[in-house]
Amino acid sequence: MENDILLRALDDDGILRLTLNDVPRRNALSEAMLAALAAAIGEAGSNPAVRVMVLTANGPAFCAGHDLKEMTAGRADADGGRAYFAKVMVMCSGVMQAIVTCPKPVIAEVTGVATAAGCQLVASCDLALAADTAQFSTPGVHIGLFCSTPMVALSRNVADKHAMEMLLTGDMTPARRAAEIGLINRAVAPETLRQATMEMARKIAAKSSMTLATGKRAYYAQREMDLSDAYAYASGVMVDNMLARDAEEGIGAFLQKRTPEWQDA
Amino acid sequence: MENDILLRALDDDGILRLTLNDVPRRNALSEAMLAALAAAIGEAGSNPAVRVMVLTANGPAFCAGHDLKEMTAGRADADGGRAYFAKVMVMCSGVMQAIVTCPKPVIAEVTGVATAAGCQLVASCDLALAADTAQFSTPGVHIGLFCSTPMVALSRNVADKHAMEMLLTGDMTPARRAAEIGLINRAVAPETLRQATMEMARKIAAKSSMTLATGKRAYYAQREMDLSDAYAYASGVMVDNMLARDAEEGIGAFLQKRTPEWQDA
Amino acid sequence: MENDILLRALDDDGILRLTLNDVPRRNALSEAMLAALAAAIGEAGSNPAVRVMVLTANGPAFCAGHDLKEMTAGRADADGGRAYFAKVMVMCSGVMQAIVTCPKPVIAEVTGVATAAGCQLVASCDLALAADTAQFSTPGVHIGLFCSTPMVALSRNVADKHAMEMLLTGDMTPARRAAEIGLINRAVAPETLRQATMEMARKIAAKSSMTLATGKRAYYAQREMDLSDAYAYASGVMVDNMLARDAEEGIGAFLQKRTPEWQDA
Repeated sequence: MENDILLRALDDDGILRLTLNDVPRRNALSEAMLAALAAAIGEAGSNPAVRVMVLTANGPAFCAGHDLKEMTAGRADADGGRAYFAKVMVMCSGVMQAIVTCPKPVIAEVTGVATAAGCQLVASCDLALAADTAQFSTPGVHIGLFCSTPMVALSRNVADKHAMEMLLTGDMTPARRAAEIGLINRAVAPETLRQATMEMARKIAAKSSMTLATGKRAYYAQREMDLSDAYAYASGVMVDNMLARDAEEGIGAFLQKRTPEWQDA
Repeated sequence: MENDILLRALDDDGILRLTLNDVPRRNALSEAMLAALAAAIGEAGSNPAVRVMVLTANGPAFCAGHDLKEMTAGRADADGGRAYFAKVMVMCSGVMQAIVTCPKPVIAEVTGVATAAGCQLVASCDLALAADTAQFSTPGVHIGLFCSTPMVALSRNVADKHAMEMLLTGDMTPARRAAEIGLINRAVAPETLRQATMEMARKIAAKSSMTLATGKRAYYAQREMDLSDAYAYASGVMVDNMLARDAEEGIGAFLQKRTPEWQDA
Repeated sequence: MENDILLRALDDDGILRLTLNDVPRRNALSEAMLAALAAAIGEAGSNPAVRVMVLTANGPAFCAGHDLKEMTAGRADADGGRAYFAKVMVMCSGVMQAIVTCPKPVIAEVTGVATAAGCQLVASCDLALAADTAQFSTPGVHIGLFCSTPMVALSRNVADKHAMEMLLTGDMTPARRAAEIGLINRAVAPETLRQATMEMARKIAAKSSMTLATGKRAYYAQREMDLSDAYAYASGVMVDNMLARDAEEGIGAFLQKRTPEWQDA
């Protein structure tokens, strides 16, 4: 199993570590990798034993984006690759959106360079910590292929001027700068990265899974509404949440100064 | 009157200071407090003597969010509290939106910890200054009740990764970090907070109230439009503003290098 | 031609420098200046020799916004200026949107103070570098005329609290602070500004113009869509981009470790 391109390890705290493990291809989002990610994220979403996911990588690169050799091979098709490219884009956009719609929080633990769709992967996670040696870029412009899907996620994380600088120049953004502009939560020393991610993951895994799922879904839903619709929607979410067993237990525990016991813990 | 849970003081510059004064309950947004805020904001909005509002608090906490004891008592109702919770959420979301739609600028002067709906209150104000000892959090996740209404305001102030870190971990964000991520304008030494807020308030109170009302309404309206609609709308606002008496006076005074005299000053 | 209010200089790298040159009027956006900008941006957009635009200025002010004397003269019209003001607002909003819709990247090189519609001009560019002596403001509130059209661009660059502080106080924001809040990409020493801008411009001018045009258009289009629509749209853009000659050449060159040759270079 250690030869799998995507390693899975679930610990006793309910933290699922997914490790990109296609080191020779710099963890490129090949068809096989996208399929493995889609399956793993889908499975984790419906597995009650999984409370939080951490997405990390083996090797010097976190993720190099699309597999350009594989994509190029598609040009031999009768349609010049159109159907194949469309298939890969749908798969890739599906994985990115699956991270957003997954009821479990997803933390990127960025060990090295994250480029193009690899940068998009980080931007798509709920949270991201990076080694301060990591770097981020959307370098498609260097090869005539603008990072148009990566920018969907990127532009929802950072200000327009910062997104445009990355997209138009293709330059690398060091991790500390990525933290300043909001692409990641913070950059830490490489030797403390895993500890920092796992500490954050354990903190979140200790919460009620029902509450996390409710909140994550509501977050992304209300982001796309205008203010009054967002309040009407979120107020309804709060009422339902108040009536759920874990809120009654949590609030009761708080008022009684004891530790809450979650239904699914 | 000093026993009121919401103190009001209007000075000669037209600055209305609203002070949360339910210190034993950490200025929680109880039904009584929400009603008092709704009344005060509504009254200030239509009172020509009020030019700017400052929202601040007595005691060590700025505002602790919903009153959990009061909320919990609602569970005794025949419907388990559903109607009561819905009523409180509508009241609370109404106060937050009343700050946004109030024609007078509202500045939060954050003296201490602002949590849950208390953090939302700060996020809902047009401007916010805080003591550098203040802290912010959306800790509902600790008690099984995700801060789904607070996140409506929070996510319109800070980047997604930062909002998600506050929401998923429930951790405190110190005032200096809150300034870095855009939740507040700046953090200052506690002993200079009031002076800094009042200086900002006086600067704004010296402007034409018509102009402030026009601009504040237009700001939040155009934020929810696409770019071309926003320009069409804002261009119309500018034309009407140009034709208003205070713009004619203000531009005339500027060109003549004299101090303008506003219609309502 | 050196007496023109807008100077144009196209170099061998395809970089068009547009220099605001109405120094006595602090490069105000008079009718004549707006017409000159509209013409120059329109021409550059369709001229294949132009790969990147740099927008800069002569004199101590970058751009002072609308020409208040010219605007005031409009009050003598039978309608008190309404039709004239509307005409100027449509022209000005048209120039701002022409920068956004222009297929060529536009970099602001901010040499000095940029106020009101001058600040909007910077906010409307794809990228912006400034001398660290430059300053930004939306001071309309001082003269009774809220910066309602400038705020359309400003509020799409910076967080609400920062935009509101500039709009409600009218205060100057120094270049270093403007960089912190995302209004510009960075502030540099005045004597290195031109070099820094031209280095960025040359880097971008070396890319495929087809790719830059594809990406810029897609960027602003997807920013106004919800997440799933944005992914559906951007995925289609990527497929078309993959099938374009410059992507085939660029990816082939990358895999073969050679320099790509763009179709229009």
